[in-house]
Amino acid sequence: MKAVGVIVEYNPFHNGHKFHLTQAKEHANADIVIAVMSGNFLQRGEPALVSKWARTEMALKGGADLVFEIPYQFATQNADLFASGAVSLLGAAKCQFICFGSEDGDIESFLETHQFLKDHDFEFQQKVKEYIGHGVSYPKALSLSFNDLSPNKKVLDLTKPNNILGIQYVTAIHDQKLPIKPITITRKNANYHDQHFASESIASATSIRKSLFTQNGELSGLQSYLPPTTYDLLLKYKKEYGQFHSWEDYWALLKYKLLQSSPQELRDIHEVEEGLENRLLQAALLAETFQEFMEQIKTKRYTWTRLQRVCLHILMNVKKVEMPKNKTANYLRLLGMSGSGREYLNKEKKNFGLPLVSKSSASKTELDLDIRSSRLYALGATGENQSRLLKLEFTQPPIQVK
Amino acid sequence: MKAVGVIVEYNPFHNGHKFHLTQAKEHANADIVIAVMSGNFLQRGEPALVSKWARTEMALKGGADLVFEIPYQFATQNADLFASGAVSLLGAAKCQFICFGSEDGDIESFLETHQFLKDHDFEFQQKVKEYIGHGVSYPKALSLSFNDLSPNKKVLDLTKPNNILGIQYVTAIHDQKLPIKPITITRKNANYHDQHFASESIASATSIRKSLFTQNGELSGLQSYLPPTTYDLLLKYKKEYGQFHSWEDYWALLKYKLLQSSPQELRDIHEVEEGLENRLLQAALLAETFQEFMEQIKTKRYTWTRLQRVCLHILMNVKKVEMPKNKTANYLRLLGMSGSGREYLNKEKKNFGLPLVSKSSASKTELDLDIRSSRLYALGATGENQSRLLKLEFTQPPIQVK
Repeated sequence: MKAVGVIVEYNPFHNGHKFHLTQAKEHANADIVIAVMSGNFLQRGEPALVSKWARTEMALKGGADLVFEIPYQFATQNADLFASGAVSLLGAAKCQFICFGSEDGDIESFLETHQFLKDHDFEFQQKVKEYIGHGVSYPKALSLSFNDLSPNKKVLDLTKPNNILGIQYVTAIHDQKLPIKPITITRKNANYHDQHFASESIASATSIRKSLFTQNGELSGLQSYLPPTTYDLLLKYKKEYGQFHSWEDYWALLKYKLLQSSPQELRDIHEVEEGLENRLLQAALLAETFQEFMEQIKTKRYTWTRLQRVCLHILMNVKKVEMPKNKTANYLRLLGMSGSGREYLNKEKKNFGLPLVSKSSASKTELDLDIRSSRLYALGATGENQSRLLKLEFTQPPIQVK
Repeated sequence: MKAVGVIVEYNPFHNGHKFHLTQAKEHANADIVIAVMSGNFLQRGEPALVSKWARTEMALKGGADLVFEIPYQFATQNADLFASGAVSLLGAAKCQFICFGSEDGDIESFLETHQFLKDHDFEFQQKVKEYIGHGVSYPKALSLSFNDLSPNKKVLDLTKPNNILGIQYVTAIHDQKLPIKPITITRKNANYHDQHFASESIASATSIRKSLFTQNGELSGLQSYLPPTTYDLLLKYKKEYGQFHSWEDYWALLKYKLLQSSPQELRDIHEVEEGLENRLLQAALLAETFQEFMEQIKTKRYTWTRLQRVCLHILMNVKKVEMPKNKTANYLRLLGMSGSGREYLNKEKKNFGLPLVSKSSASKTELDLDIRSSRLYALGATGENQSRLLKLEFTQPPIQVK
């Protein structure tokens, strides 16, 4: 059986994602689509609207056949590590193709750019360092360095977020020497970070989330951008757990953690750079909301996203010494499967490059960070909702959809 | 000027406390009463109903002349350390007398018993160890050992909580060789732990708190047990900060802290004994309220009070290595004064045995635990109330009452 892989967050799964899945299968002429998806916390360092289980169900009902979890150690890191971990999962699951959406839409641009960056690696890294030394954020430094090096023969616009991710995927495939062929399709209409609706049926996940939160969790007006299955699952989640999750739900815990930690304890946390701990502590003392807190700590040097990831690692209590250093995954955590997905598993799992984990258990220490992140996610809810979410990690078998 | 000292928590200050202050001054024929009072967290390991500032004002309006804070390192410890730290403050503030309430009411019983325990110290300690080895709690072991040693010439009933505290005060005065004369008065009507009202004007603080919490913070029905000044200050606090504080307000934070700490991090916390960490973690996963949690972790071996103190140290993140080991205080933190109190300060402070601290500041590292406990206390409130409580520690000058 032929499998095409996609790397996703589905926060939430919308019409654009559904279009992407159809296109991926078609372009690769594949039998199934394998989605590797972030768990409860995302690459932007924030909680997903709804749990990984609800998002898995959305994915399966929207056309994915197998869903594996991108472990916390990759899901909540910079684009480089995120891409590397995610691609390693697709490799282990024996995908022959990867299909990603990009602003560019032409795979040749990615391959050429990758080659160019490889040939000019040393100069490129020097440039990046230089820009960072001048207080520029990492993503911005990447794009500026690239522009400097190839002002005339520029083939790929690396100021676009999906182009950046795409080039990281291509690089990861190359670095890991995986037999995966990359395909890209042009993202339809909506730009990744668009906060406004630009089409009648396709909207970015960002604009959908924004609408949800400004409408106090109301789904009205979003029907046209979501598959009916997603719409129903969002309604169901809200009924079952009383909310959609946002950073504000975790603010009281983060504030507590910041105020009760010693400066040394904060410095020991993954990604907390020397000096940042005092800035965080001072802001925490004054801010009443997470939004206020973020506005106070934001500087040119640190992107919002990076600071959110730092906050998440603090909340997770992930120390520098305990964050695994490997750039590829150690296990394939199965979150869900369709009928064809199960068939693929039965046929191919003996060839998988990594152990398959179908259920979490406290004794699996390699899952420690994923278990902690699920526990933390549950603490954003209250009362009985919290208790039910807390149990899920150990009781929920992989979601099955026909 | 002659000063009599009292050791108090005033949670809240009631008619019995007022009676005690009057009696103390009278029996000692003193010019002023110096109260050393627990801060925001109490010896039972729980948050005070209202902040130390509100309780200081109650004390001053009820007859105290100077109020000093018992530092966290003593206020939240077993009776032995609590007494030792508190008595050292009274010594440093040059009290000639200490007056404590007791069930017994006769100071000779205390002096005799103290002498008897001193003479039989070795046997006594052996007995206590033996009982603890059989899984009996520490307070129970004390009283059983005492009964065993002096079955016929028993002069003091050491099953009574105030008698136990009294004997600790007398012992601390002796151990620290302080020129303080102990006086005791019989506690009027209400027993320390009484949960029911037994008189028309005197009720235990326990019964008052119980009434407050079962009535959802309503003060009605409590007027007759409280001085009007206390009554008004409680009303004012509730209006100003929206609540009275209880462990339930901190439960979400404790649960978070338990679930995100490694077993080793929990074992490193002051008073967490080997093996207890797993019991705490398992209970935290299941309990929805602090009450449920406590009921699950309670055993014959650990008293409720002791477990609450353990929980408090966990929430405070006080490690074994950072809990100071000295048995006497390092500073006198002034919380408030009356006119006579100020006069006494002006005359006597040059003779004080410890540095006087009138205002907290982040640079005073010796106050670290007190500052952390005030921050933690504030986190039991929400929104603006929390922000105002957070600022208090650094902005509130000592309360002054004419």
